[in-house]
Amino acid sequence: MKILDIGESKLIEIIQDLVSAPERDSNFINNRLLVGIGDDASAWQPGPGLEISTTDTLVQGVHFSLSYSSWYDIGWKAMASNLSDISAMGGVPLYALINAGFPSYMDVDDVKDLYKGMLSIADKYSVRIMGGDLVRCETSFITVMIIGTSERDLLLRSNMTPGDLIAVTGNLGSSAAGLRILSGDLSCTNEAHESIIESHLRPCPRINEGLTLAANGIRAAMDISDGLIIDLNKFCDSSGVGAVVYADKIPISQYLQEIFSSDEIIALALGGGEDYELLFSGPRDIVLSIIPKLASGATIIGKVSESHVGKVHVLDSENRKIALDDIGWDHFKL
Amino acid sequence: MKILDIGESKLIEIIQDLVSAPERDSNFINNRLLVGIGDDASAWQPGPGLEISTTDTLVQGVHFSLSYSSWYDIGWKAMASNLSDISAMGGVPLYALINAGFPSYMDVDDVKDLYKGMLSIADKYSVRIMGGDLVRCETSFITVMIIGTSERDLLLRSNMTPGDLIAVTGNLGSSAAGLRILSGDLSCTNEAHESIIESHLRPCPRINEGLTLAANGIRAAMDISDGLIIDLNKFCDSSGVGAVVYADKIPISQYLQEIFSSDEIIALALGGGEDYELLFSGPRDIVLSIIPKLASGATIIGKVSESHVGKVHVLDSENRKIALDDIGWDHFKL
Repeated sequence: MKILDIGESKLIEIIQDLVSAPERDSNFINNRLLVGIGDDASAWQPGPGLEISTTDTLVQGVHFSLSYSSWYDIGWKAMASNLSDISAMGGVPLYALINAGFPSYMDVDDVKDLYKGMLSIADKYSVRIMGGDLVRCETSFITVMIIGTSERDLLLRSNMTPGDLIAVTGNLGSSAAGLRILSGDLSCTNEAHESIIESHLRPCPRINEGLTLAANGIRAAMDISDGLIIDLNKFCDSSGVGAVVYADKIPISQYLQEIFSSDEIIALALGGGEDYELLFSGPRDIVLSIIPKLASGATIIGKVSESHVGKVHVLDSENRKIALDDIGWDHFKL
Repeated sequence: MKILDIGESKLIEIIQDLVSAPERDSNFINNRLLVGIGDDASAWQPGPGLEISTTDTLVQGVHFSLSYSSWYDIGWKAMASNLSDISAMGGVPLYALINAGFPSYMDVDDVKDLYKGMLSIADKYSVRIMGGDLVRCETSFITVMIIGTSERDLLLRSNMTPGDLIAVTGNLGSSAAGLRILSGDLSCTNEAHESIIESHLRPCPRINEGLTLAANGIRAAMDISDGLIIDLNKFCDSSGVGAVVYADKIPISQYLQEIFSSDEIIALALGGGEDYELLFSGPRDIVLSIIPKLASGATIIGKVSESHVGKVHVLDSENRKIALDDIGWDHFKL
């Protein structure tokens, strides 16, 4: 069954049924959502904290490909990348608006799978889909917008301070490595490959880690979506500082080490995007005391400096500067 | 200069400069926006009221055409249609997130014109663009998401009550008539044509009218985006009621009467979308007392009935039922 067979009103009804399943509603004990899907706008009663909002769009052929991702995966990642932005502010995600464009010949079941993917990860964090807009578009796209809240000081990109240590949760490079495997550079053969592919298709936002950072004195963080070097450069720019990163300190999954050469690994770790790990900085004692509290783990990878503002220097194990080619990517530059 | 000549980072910088012009910032005296463009998410301090959120997407070739709209017009309408949804809840709009997809060969000046169009109407209502996402997409699209607030009871689609009078602000059919002129069915020759075209390209959301309705005892409203009959049907569905509309009571611009036949006018008024007028209902005395307070004016066009739930009956001047063909449109049905 195609979308054009049923039309917009029926499609909205199907999605509304998926979104507002009774077992889901009953999980929201402290429900502050007053108006959800079906009116001109959604409405909620804000809590005592600040409100936080973020949005990201994924476009078919640019940010995802159906040749290696299912619609369920795409829904998962569209939701996860936005949850990650809320985590990078130290916030709690609450509500989502979903805008999506599909060609009219798209299967209704594919649309349902997309929403199931979004709901599967939204449910993990009790995030409610409260509205959105569906439109016809020859190129499929998905926009997620999330509203969250924070009762703590926010984690800001502008809060890095010279002398701070820089740390990162989890491991880096796994998502880019997964994309390489999926793109056919390497065939999927074993547990290592499967784990790496999972990192690319189903990233996990670090919501609890962001809350732990904010609750324990960290004030500067961002999530890694475009790659360590690009994102750390932005982080430095926002704070008016520079940074030094020690390449051999960057945390790498053991699975990557089984499959890739050390040169490949360093390129993946420095330039690979979509890991959605949290990059944060803070005074030495705070960073050291906080790492054991993070479920994801975290690793100190460098430090903030006053010199070379807005630049990231990567050093090898003998403190020699590594020359970086253009690592990462820019959405519009082809 | 094309987008691909400068890349995403530079494009974001250009837009950030447009959005955060100092003269604009100084207009926000009671500024509750704490984090705007440039961090992982935006953040604000909510006021004492409820929070309201809505979003709409416009796609090139589906919702707009460059053959008769400028990018400035498209920006205006993308912002106006979302402001209208906030007005239909009786809310005050505060902040906007903008997601947009453009092909990489698009002119940077066109992107700027789009944002200038959005800003021109956002500024009228002191709405701040606080963030968003720019992506590459072969088909251009613009998504606006607005956060607003309300300290009153909301205007809801579910609040129509049998016996209520139904009224509408302004005039109906002008936007659809403007589209007909622009599409080349009629050539633009005089003041009447120009005024009608303006209705299509630069609709005015009824923010102040929505606030007046909410402050004076109205509880049921929606905005007309898909056309009177389609939208009133949705309104009735949400409230579990029916409605009767008197065709000869529907307010029509005198300019339409100069150009179109009476049959054309009734089709435009019943079926034409994008007027962004407010449709509301309430007890007779409240509706009568409120109409003089609305800057746009408003006209009583019908009443809410207990019978034929979810259906709208249109009657002519002799109380005969007018047979309606499928008027209006569905985004996915071609």
